[in-house]
Amino acid sequence: MKFRRSERLIDMTNYLLEHPRQLIPLTFFSDKYDSAKSSISEDLAIIKETFEQRGIGTLQTVPGAAGGVKFFVKVGNQEVKPFINELCELIASPERLLPGGYLYMTDILGNPSIVQKAGRLFASAYAHADIDVVMTVATKGIPLAYAVASQLNVPVVIVRRDSKVTEGSTVSINYVSGSTKRIQTMVLSKRSLEEGSKVLIVDDFMKAGGTINGMVSLLDEFNALVAGIAVLVESEEIEERLVEDYLSLVKLSNVDVKEKKISVSEGNYFKHN
Amino acid sequence: MKFRRSERLIDMTNYLLEHPRQLIPLTFFSDKYDSAKSSISEDLAIIKETFEQRGIGTLQTVPGAAGGVKFFVKVGNQEVKPFINELCELIASPERLLPGGYLYMTDILGNPSIVQKAGRLFASAYAHADIDVVMTVATKGIPLAYAVASQLNVPVVIVRRDSKVTEGSTVSINYVSGSTKRIQTMVLSKRSLEEGSKVLIVDDFMKAGGTINGMVSLLDEFNALVAGIAVLVESEEIEERLVEDYLSLVKLSNVDVKEKKISVSEGNYFKHN
Repeated sequence: MKFRRSERLIDMTNYLLEHPRQLIPLTFFSDKYDSAKSSISEDLAIIKETFEQRGIGTLQTVPGAAGGVKFFVKVGNQEVKPFINELCELIASPERLLPGGYLYMTDILGNPSIVQKAGRLFASAYAHADIDVVMTVATKGIPLAYAVASQLNVPVVIVRRDSKVTEGSTVSINYVSGSTKRIQTMVLSKRSLEEGSKVLIVDDFMKAGGTINGMVSLLDEFNALVAGIAVLVESEEIEERLVEDYLSLVKLSNVDVKEKKISVSEGNYFKHN
Repeated sequence: MKFRRSERLIDMTNYLLEHPRQLIPLTFFSDKYDSAKSSISEDLAIIKETFEQRGIGTLQTVPGAAGGVKFFVKVGNQEVKPFINELCELIASPERLLPGGYLYMTDILGNPSIVQKAGRLFASAYAHADIDVVMTVATKGIPLAYAVASQLNVPVVIVRRDSKVTEGSTVSINYVSGSTKRIQTMVLSKRSLEEGSKVLIVDDFMKAGGTINGMVSLLDEFNALVAGIAVLVESEEIEERLVEDYLSLVKLSNVDVKEKKISVSEGNYFKHN
């Protein structure tokens, strides 16, 4: 069956969006649509231009016999700014205040559309980085970790607080929580991470950074490397930050329980992207 | 700026894929592309035809002043069958066997591409059902729950084994695990689920169904309703199934630890779809 250009453009768009960071040979498309390679190249040029103009992503053409095309998520600045502002507004709502100055974030993290967008932002920042796997700690960071990983085309490994029989043998470490100074444990299934892996750490919230530091120590045990750290919200209210190099979308600067006021601002995402 | 048809088709495809089950007025697109409604209608007809032919989904046109277009995920049978077969093969690998006859599934659940596809299958099955929210229990079901929810355009609520300070006030229930007959607890944040919600329960694995039954009891406490139950893998090795009406992709029929043989077959997904 022959395909018209319009059909090819629609189906290729869908295919590329579903296969980020994968090299797709032109012959794959020309076979799929029973079309000449020259037509496919023209299609890709149109898609590339539209993706770039509309802030969807970029296409990279790899020339040669083993060549093809690769799609990378690239969120345009015109989309980043309003999204981060929307997040800040959402988080600043006084109804989020819980006893002890904690913030209720479950609705935000439970909204797949927000989580996907945040994931696209981080994937956009690390699109060209050498990353083999995304790591997070159970439970709240999981959805964001998957949102990032699916756009980077890498697996997710989940660190747990306790070992479970379905995880097989595990490696466990003790670490000191940055804010409460308590000793805590984290556990990772031995099989789940290969030696030498380059790991992007993703989490929903970072206070002093003790948990993230714990994950960094755990990576040491696996002879794996930190390729980046991405958090949705960082809290400024700390004496000493244990983690230096990270990306955040939102910065929580002050929580005034008495006045019911939550002060938030943009995270450092913009400074780096 | 005027848009050519090819650019509109690419950008509309991306937009529709990102906004499943949302009514998008034609004026939204005609404003976005500075194009006549008649052109947009033609574009949508082409997209609809291609989506249906390629097993991407369906477009529903809602006529009238408050009308527009809605995208629903619809996975074609030509895609379902090979995917379920691939899952069965993956799960049947003897290397998955853990002490006690448990199966290591962390790599499968850690693969965003597999999880997305499984999510699309379930979203396809429930695309036209009246669902307000997807519910799962921490930890392993979370990625699949988000994959389904993002395609159904609904939030996710996560039931936990213990209450956390960041969840605010909670409702907790005790339930009996179907296979071990032990009393267990599950907890859900009070704010996270509205009364009367229609809930799709999603989990990675169902043995006797005790955990899922627990979630059903929890829904009672919230005066919420079960709209469906979807599990990636069901186990046949049980005396008595506590849950009757559900969808599964894979059925685990026998785990022979001595012979290192795992027997799997298709779940009941096909019988219903």
